[in-house]
Amino acid sequence: MDSMSFVLFGATGDLAKRKIFPALFNLYIENKLPEAYFIIGLGRKDFTSESFREYVKENILEFSRQTSKEENLNRFLQLIHYSVLNVDNKEDYQKLLKTVEKLEVEKNIEQNRMFYLSVAPNFFDVIASNIKESGLGSTKGWKRLIIEKPFGRDLKTARELNEKLSKSFAEEEVFRIDHYLGKGMVQNLDTLRFSNSILEPLWNKNHVDNIQITAAETVGVEERAGYYDHSGAIRDMIQNHMMQMFMLVAMDKPANGSTIHDEKKKVLESVRRIAENEVSNNVIRAQYSSGHMNGKEVQGYLNEPGITSDSKTDTYIALRLLVDNERWSGVPFYIRTGKRLKEKTTKIVVQFKSLSGSGEKEAQPNLLIIEINPTEGVKFQFNSKSQLDSSVVETTSNMESVKNVPEAYERLIYDALTGNNTYFSKWDEVEHSWKLVQPMLDMFQEDMPLCKYASGTFGPKEADQLLQEHNFKWWN
Amino acid sequence: MDSMSFVLFGATGDLAKRKIFPALFNLYIENKLPEAYFIIGLGRKDFTSESFREYVKENILEFSRQTSKEENLNRFLQLIHYSVLNVDNKEDYQKLLKTVEKLEVEKNIEQNRMFYLSVAPNFFDVIASNIKESGLGSTKGWKRLIIEKPFGRDLKTARELNEKLSKSFAEEEVFRIDHYLGKGMVQNLDTLRFSNSILEPLWNKNHVDNIQITAAETVGVEERAGYYDHSGAIRDMIQNHMMQMFMLVAMDKPANGSTIHDEKKKVLESVRRIAENEVSNNVIRAQYSSGHMNGKEVQGYLNEPGITSDSKTDTYIALRLLVDNERWSGVPFYIRTGKRLKEKTTKIVVQFKSLSGSGEKEAQPNLLIIEINPTEGVKFQFNSKSQLDSSVVETTSNMESVKNVPEAYERLIYDALTGNNTYFSKWDEVEHSWKLVQPMLDMFQEDMPLCKYASGTFGPKEADQLLQEHNFKWWN
Repeated sequence: MDSMSFVLFGATGDLAKRKIFPALFNLYIENKLPEAYFIIGLGRKDFTSESFREYVKENILEFSRQTSKEENLNRFLQLIHYSVLNVDNKEDYQKLLKTVEKLEVEKNIEQNRMFYLSVAPNFFDVIASNIKESGLGSTKGWKRLIIEKPFGRDLKTARELNEKLSKSFAEEEVFRIDHYLGKGMVQNLDTLRFSNSILEPLWNKNHVDNIQITAAETVGVEERAGYYDHSGAIRDMIQNHMMQMFMLVAMDKPANGSTIHDEKKKVLESVRRIAENEVSNNVIRAQYSSGHMNGKEVQGYLNEPGITSDSKTDTYIALRLLVDNERWSGVPFYIRTGKRLKEKTTKIVVQFKSLSGSGEKEAQPNLLIIEINPTEGVKFQFNSKSQLDSSVVETTSNMESVKNVPEAYERLIYDALTGNNTYFSKWDEVEHSWKLVQPMLDMFQEDMPLCKYASGTFGPKEADQLLQEHNFKWWN
Repeated sequence: MDSMSFVLFGATGDLAKRKIFPALFNLYIENKLPEAYFIIGLGRKDFTSESFREYVKENILEFSRQTSKEENLNRFLQLIHYSVLNVDNKEDYQKLLKTVEKLEVEKNIEQNRMFYLSVAPNFFDVIASNIKESGLGSTKGWKRLIIEKPFGRDLKTARELNEKLSKSFAEEEVFRIDHYLGKGMVQNLDTLRFSNSILEPLWNKNHVDNIQITAAETVGVEERAGYYDHSGAIRDMIQNHMMQMFMLVAMDKPANGSTIHDEKKKVLESVRRIAENEVSNNVIRAQYSSGHMNGKEVQGYLNEPGITSDSKTDTYIALRLLVDNERWSGVPFYIRTGKRLKEKTTKIVVQFKSLSGSGEKEAQPNLLIIEINPTEGVKFQFNSKSQLDSSVVETTSNMESVKNVPEAYERLIYDALTGNNTYFSKWDEVEHSWKLVQPMLDMFQEDMPLCKYASGTFGPKEADQLLQEHNFKWWN
């Protein structure tokens, strides 16, 4: 792995505290950091490098997946530095450049620079252009930019943002984090599909009836009201995470030199566009009302702190996609996500066609269930004679899972360090997702009906009806 | 269920004690016996009905799967009678007829008579013909004959036996017990195959590389030396149990009015016959020598009590079958069974074709593993990215099993009571199996090499070589 400078903007923020530093420390324990490197944290808060190390130490002790001897932790901390930086202040970038260059010389590091923007999206542009202007981006080695979501809030702003970033960083230098792409089972989707000879022959319209992708949360809006009420489930989950999972499930196998990115883009291009006048037939938007979670009464979205009482923000989206290609023609993909649902689960269910006219009336359709979160695993659900009463056909399934696996941020940061962008969102994927979602955003503005669902349920009845139109049901 | 008389020959024998009476009692507990019935046990030993009931009671308490209140057990016992019978003595059959008729009148039972021959095979013929001659077989209702294995000791004696039985019982009245067909997972094979839409498209030469059927025992010859040394694994296991499992795995789906029996027979007819000069290329016979089981030294077959020191009896057989039909052309079926092996397991492994040229070098072939004994379950073994190191492709699998399931004899006796012969061996199946095995028996007589394997291993190296010829290996 190349020696490098790791420059973290937003180093005193919540993500850095809970995810980024713990991930870096876990990579350190596992010898997955370069031999020569340093980390420089940037923020508005008044830390010295010394006091910042103390702060990081506490956070690692609280949030790290793995523990290690204190001397290891201290050795890791020695490579962390801190500078105060105001993102608008050009002088601060000049100071930063000097600090980076000095450390690079000291540690004999080639000028490979990783810039990680763990900041609010409105700062992406100014930081990127200051990196360029200051000379920080003029390296003898490589430079890379890791940025967090959200990437725009609609097609137009996403394009503007990309346009701006592209002045400072080339597309192949930009690593857009979609932390769902860092989850073990999401990264496993391509291996699962393409290294098992029994799956590919079944993975098409001849054998699949429908595919369901679910990301259900039990939590409500919590402390994120300010952000969430301007985004809704459509921006927070659908445009990015759900579409990424969809692409990995639906894409063809990369072959003849094509990459996973190429295949993801291709399948996204094959998705039938949902025009504005078709949105209400294919998309259900809903908001949670009061209800019961684990026996406790909870309030509705409109009564949450920080939410205006007439908010039309969606906390639940279900939609149907059709893919007009040879593999999937006629097979609906159902995608749903929501807050305050009965169960916390992220999963993909492939429902295979039922046997017709076989007289096996009790038989349930075969399912392949890929559990992504909170358990990870794959199970086939198939029919078997009941061992206790052989006249009954029952459905059995199996599951195996692994404990203490690396967190998404460990995988993703490692990939970025090594320059592997397979599990990051490329611009064309982001743009295509926005194109698909834009008519929905427009119709939501036009006062498309906002359904209601009680907290602690599986979502609005309208989402059930969406599947009933084709005689399907959600596999909860 | 029809009222009936249940006439058990060999009622004081070991099978009746351990299996038949406990099975009947379990059916009684589960209300799976007719409303009106009685059981009459026959044997040479001097029991009264009273003392026989005491004897049965003790055995049920020791061997029954389920327990019940003592009053239930006593009520069950009241319907058991005992008569002394010498199988050669015609007068005894006349006395039996009178007893049966008297009990039938008393209990208002229509003349449905179930004759269960739990006796040594040399008595099958004489009992069947005496049933006929005595008038016991001339019933106003139905009559049925349940017989235990072995059904002949080669093609000739099997044909002779069938010829004799057919004078007293029609083929549809004969229920030949193969207790492997009573095992839950064996009875599940057809449901598994035909009520799951994902399996049928994969169940053929395009997707299957080979199929392995294993019945491995850890025990040696134990107290069965007298019988076993004249039978060997070929008669004890291959001709009956293993061939039955093979048929259920390889048969086509019954359709257009055909039955499972029809399909089993068809696939057996498609098996390529192994001529005498090909036996040694396709069949491995072996005998266990001394070795270690669970850290203890155990002696070889030739030193077992009751075995002559120059015995050539096989305690292990492995063989390769090819099926010349459209579904299986070119797919080898490997069948093996043996005593004193490392692990006790009966299982079927379907090995699917590997992916070729996919660069997925680490990927193992996909397997469908059907565990029959001692655990019951079905698992898919597929490839998945390692959760701990994503550069490693590892193999995962799943299993679910059910406890306290009915024993084979419960299922089979119940089926016979209701006249369902699906899971009994029909004559044409038995005959075809003997036809297939006869050249092997002949070559064994001709001093075909008898290999040796150490107790506690997975069998002789020659059995491994049998698979290596096609670049396969046993899945142990």
